[in-house]
Amino acid sequence: MSILEDVKLAKKSSIHLANLALKKKNEVLHQIALEIDNRRDEIKNANEKDYKRSLENNLSKPLLKRLVMDDYKIDGVIEGIHSLINLPDPVDDTTLARELDKHLDLYRVTVPIGVIGVIFESRPDAFVQISTLCLKSGNACILKGGSEAQLTNEVLYDIILSATKKTGIDENWIKNIGTREEVAQMLKLDKYIDLIIPRGSNSFVQYIMQNANIPVMGHADGICHVFVDEQVDIDMAVDIVIDSKTQYVSVCNALETLLVHKDTDPEFLEKLWQMLLLKKVTVNGCERTAKIIECEKLTEEKLRTEFLDYEMNIKIVDSLDEAIDHINEYGSSHTDVIVTENAENSIKFMNYVDSANVFYNCSSRFSDGFRYGFGAEVGVSTNKIHARGPVGLEGLVIYKYKLIGHGQVVEDYMKGNKKFTHKELNRVFEAKN
Amino acid sequence: MSILEDVKLAKKSSIHLANLALKKKNEVLHQIALEIDNRRDEIKNANEKDYKRSLENNLSKPLLKRLVMDDYKIDGVIEGIHSLINLPDPVDDTTLARELDKHLDLYRVTVPIGVIGVIFESRPDAFVQISTLCLKSGNACILKGGSEAQLTNEVLYDIILSATKKTGIDENWIKNIGTREEVAQMLKLDKYIDLIIPRGSNSFVQYIMQNANIPVMGHADGICHVFVDEQVDIDMAVDIVIDSKTQYVSVCNALETLLVHKDTDPEFLEKLWQMLLLKKVTVNGCERTAKIIECEKLTEEKLRTEFLDYEMNIKIVDSLDEAIDHINEYGSSHTDVIVTENAENSIKFMNYVDSANVFYNCSSRFSDGFRYGFGAEVGVSTNKIHARGPVGLEGLVIYKYKLIGHGQVVEDYMKGNKKFTHKELNRVFEAKN
Repeated sequence: MSILEDVKLAKKSSIHLANLALKKKNEVLHQIALEIDNRRDEIKNANEKDYKRSLENNLSKPLLKRLVMDDYKIDGVIEGIHSLINLPDPVDDTTLARELDKHLDLYRVTVPIGVIGVIFESRPDAFVQISTLCLKSGNACILKGGSEAQLTNEVLYDIILSATKKTGIDENWIKNIGTREEVAQMLKLDKYIDLIIPRGSNSFVQYIMQNANIPVMGHADGICHVFVDEQVDIDMAVDIVIDSKTQYVSVCNALETLLVHKDTDPEFLEKLWQMLLLKKVTVNGCERTAKIIECEKLTEEKLRTEFLDYEMNIKIVDSLDEAIDHINEYGSSHTDVIVTENAENSIKFMNYVDSANVFYNCSSRFSDGFRYGFGAEVGVSTNKIHARGPVGLEGLVIYKYKLIGHGQVVEDYMKGNKKFTHKELNRVFEAKN
Repeated sequence: MSILEDVKLAKKSSIHLANLALKKKNEVLHQIALEIDNRRDEIKNANEKDYKRSLENNLSKPLLKRLVMDDYKIDGVIEGIHSLINLPDPVDDTTLARELDKHLDLYRVTVPIGVIGVIFESRPDAFVQISTLCLKSGNACILKGGSEAQLTNEVLYDIILSATKKTGIDENWIKNIGTREEVAQMLKLDKYIDLIIPRGSNSFVQYIMQNANIPVMGHADGICHVFVDEQVDIDMAVDIVIDSKTQYVSVCNALETLLVHKDTDPEFLEKLWQMLLLKKVTVNGCERTAKIIECEKLTEEKLRTEFLDYEMNIKIVDSLDEAIDHINEYGSSHTDVIVTENAENSIKFMNYVDSANVFYNCSSRFSDGFRYGFGAEVGVSTNKIHARGPVGLEGLVIYKYKLIGHGQVVEDYMKGNKKFTHKELNRVFEAKN
């Protein structure tokens, strides 16, 4: 069967999924969690084969690490589904209710986006995580996992299909597609697929973004900055830089480049350096930095590199404005932090730095859906439309307008026989209107 | 100067425009309205030259009509700016305020999207309309009008630049680019342009959508349906169909295809036919329709055609479900209407038809930003993300997250030294926090 057939079936299914009651969606989620638990040996066996094959194929270490599906990860997946069950339904929320005229009422109601294409590398836990997020938000999904996780994904797909069948809903809401060639095909199917969510390395996401005819939600780079201002609590600044850089290095919201005001007490950099030595962080410093601490040479290329490792840049700047300009030029609009005792400067920084997350006196590592209290995270988006920053279930819905009339025609309003009242209504759209 | 230089300048300017006070933005808008009024002879002279040249070049009638910039249209443009001035600022609205922990407060605040590329055919009034909408929402804009309106657009551009200079704000927020080749170039500048809004014919918009690396907001087709159900008020149904089709034929929310339930009283089609004859509407009917009224043959191609003229299709269907399936297959997800006395059917129709606007017992012509009470309209979008249906100023903003801490680091929360409180705050983000 061609991918087009699969995608058409998913599209058809999405219309019904959009109208599935919350109770029914949660029932399927419960069943998926249950079957994952029941069939965990099967998952682990398949995963061991995937791992062994990938090891022989010299898969990179970070990807190998993400490939593992052990009891710890399986428990995490099950826990994730349970917390998803407890979240409110993002669908069918009335976000505007307005009387246009007597007995002519307009409602804006949230609905699922439709069909989501999800393309990811390595992590089989993402397979379950994203498909259950789609289900909860009423979206059909087309999944394409990496070939390195093929056997694991097949078991997980079979589990989701089986749980779906047991609860009696149309199984076409989820499709697992196979080969890499099919990805290229998928990216052109804008008639049927409404949104692509890529999960993987920088180059992988960039490839998707550049080749899709379909909107893509996500981020390629996470090049994050901390700017340490002139007036600063030195210990706080050191703590924030160390946490931003070293709390977990292989994530998108970890620090790349520290910018330091030229008039900041040199004690800050000296103290920081001690801590960085301890944590074995390689520092690439500008010429002025090199006069204060020992470091490698800072290049233009390094300023545009996402490290995902114990490496960082330090650059001394002349002013807040230079820091802002630097971030808007070199950053990836992900997460940027100012550390300062000057409240006015913090406001200017947060207003003029054009990033999804702008922070004042705290670690860059806070930009995350769970830490923000969204209960679930679809991903972090550096898009300028639809959803920006950490994206929760809200990011998987859009809305439609429902207008309830009693025979009204526009001609009456054009001729002046009738006039619009445009009065806000304090009510939600009811299925039985 | 190359378009890249222009676009870079606009990007830089957008950061400042994003932080411009409402008062200042309204001051520029006032000045633009004033200068348009003062220089209306200059506008009309340029427009006459454009018109004469376009007539000689055999520009199509609808485009010629839209090209005209007479006193009536100029008055409309000025009136539009004044109503825009009265709208609230869409920027700097706090849409979420949450304590993540004590003294660690998260705010989600609306911000402009950044740089909007606007590409349009013929209508010089759109030049002013869209650029002022961008200004009010704090977005820089790159405008590319049609060559047929070149001289008119140049005068309008000069007016906007002059008004901008008089109020002392950076004039780089608006750029007028010239040739058709530059459009292709513009569509690839995703590093600097955040959103493209096309305004023009179906094929024109489709070209933009298929060739842009940048998200596009708008609609190509407006293929709209009215479904007349079995239980129906015949006179109401006739009124709604006639208004939907003939109130103004050259617009996107006018009717293309009427679907009629097979068991609807034949009197409906007979009555309707009398009215359609009177209005000189050509009807393409299915075989069953042809047994009741005189009509042309209905083809697959006609079902996929946006008429923008006195022409429509009529098809008899066996059921509500067939009507829904037909609309989801042939429609353009723009506006679709059910006329019925059966409330349950109306609910099913509005839930299962996957369109931006789904109406019950009223004309398709109501799907419009002004009729919805938005005060201004950016356009109608059939996108499934960001903004759908008639788009007001809200569609030109996104948000950023501002997190205000007092030295917090993530490590404390990972180790369990601290716990997130996730408490909603009843406050807005204040510049002086």
